[in-house]
Amino acid sequence: MTTHTGKLLGVGVGPGDPELMTLKAARALADAEVVAHFAKAGNVSHSRTIAAAHVRPGVIELPLLYPVTIELSKCSNEYRDAIGAFYDESAAKITAHLEAGCTVAVICEGDPMFYGSYMHLHTRLAPRFPTEIIAGVSGMSGCWSAAGMPIAQGDDVFTVLPATLPEGELARRLGNADAAVVMKVGRHLPKVRRALAASGRLPRALYVERGTMADAKMISLSAKVDDHAPYFAIVLVPGWEGRW
Amino acid sequence: MTTHTGKLLGVGVGPGDPELMTLKAARALADAEVVAHFAKAGNVSHSRTIAAAHVRPGVIELPLLYPVTIELSKCSNEYRDAIGAFYDESAAKITAHLEAGCTVAVICEGDPMFYGSYMHLHTRLAPRFPTEIIAGVSGMSGCWSAAGMPIAQGDDVFTVLPATLPEGELARRLGNADAAVVMKVGRHLPKVRRALAASGRLPRALYVERGTMADAKMISLSAKVDDHAPYFAIVLVPGWEGRW
Repeated sequence: MTTHTGKLLGVGVGPGDPELMTLKAARALADAEVVAHFAKAGNVSHSRTIAAAHVRPGVIELPLLYPVTIELSKCSNEYRDAIGAFYDESAAKITAHLEAGCTVAVICEGDPMFYGSYMHLHTRLAPRFPTEIIAGVSGMSGCWSAAGMPIAQGDDVFTVLPATLPEGELARRLGNADAAVVMKVGRHLPKVRRALAASGRLPRALYVERGTMADAKMISLSAKVDDHAPYFAIVLVPGWEGRW
Repeated sequence: MTTHTGKLLGVGVGPGDPELMTLKAARALADAEVVAHFAKAGNVSHSRTIAAAHVRPGVIELPLLYPVTIELSKCSNEYRDAIGAFYDESAAKITAHLEAGCTVAVICEGDPMFYGSYMHLHTRLAPRFPTEIIAGVSGMSGCWSAAGMPIAQGDDVFTVLPATLPEGELARRLGNADAAVVMKVGRHLPKVRRALAASGRLPRALYVERGTMADAKMISLSAKVDDHAPYFAIVLVPGWEGRW
């Protein structure tokens, strides 16, 4: 009879290359009794694909399928209600396993605490159960490493900016930072391009799609002739201009 | 007879916990013929300590010992000349091994392209030799993970700030970011504390020393009564204030 609750693990599996998983993540998957992963309904979980070689045969798998993705505006109350209820339900499913004494590994692309969905479960569950975070290589680190691009050095100010910011604010922030990453570029690419030009950073900007996949696309943004970009495309602006 | 040059590997070994090395880093160390690592003269290399279990017995080791550290001001021409010459000499030593056809792994704490010394070798060698970067878990990621602190979410602006910035600029930048990391705190702690207070961010700030070591020290900065801080101490300010 189980007299103790299980442990919650937030497991970063890195940016895409299965070999960029940590030794600790691989061990956590070897030990976990339940493996949970987020995915869009109808899609395979990216984190599950990355970790595939380490998911034990016969382990209990708990797919957590987002009910809404791009159908509703992220600013709408409807979206917030739907996604909030989804995280509540997901936390409840995990709670049942933790209360049964099982170790539950929630696998996450990149780094769990850095722009990861896991954080929504963490805030709901960490106050109630023993919890451990296994840090992972972030998606953006996978990109600048694959590009062979030194991103920030010494006393550089480094900034991560969502492409959703207004153009003037993007330009101001790009001008104020030594090194920058613009995330979630997608349909915002024309605006991002203008903001980079206005801040004088366009010549150094690198456009990256699927940065750590075999079919990665990396091109100087000023050489990219079209404005097509998937949602998860990013732009890297290296700092360290006074290198020596 | 070797008819080809060797390959240069910039290998991130993560923030400190040897298990936070990636599978790819472990494999690179198993394959490399030469393992190079930076250290302060008279000190053991941190990256060498982290990777110890994966350095093959009998492999050629190439310690790269900084000639100057805190003796000279970083802004002085003397410092720049001395450290520039050191990187030139280090690159020359590695070149000899690459030209002999050996694979050289330069192991680096954290992530090689993110505030890492390896970048100084990379800019000197990558134009001449086949090069691969193996991304690593960054030191700051190790810290927020060990703290169980969700650092940034959704459309948060995330910023890394060196504690060397003037107080007013620190305060302004802290007020402008959703999430922030202040690096290299050391003797700047009183100034960092004032800048956090001025920007309204002090109540959420976490002070971290040796974040991923067994003897880590983490304390709310407003609860820390003294102003002693080692050079590598950092302060984490989480974003995601409107969490749901």
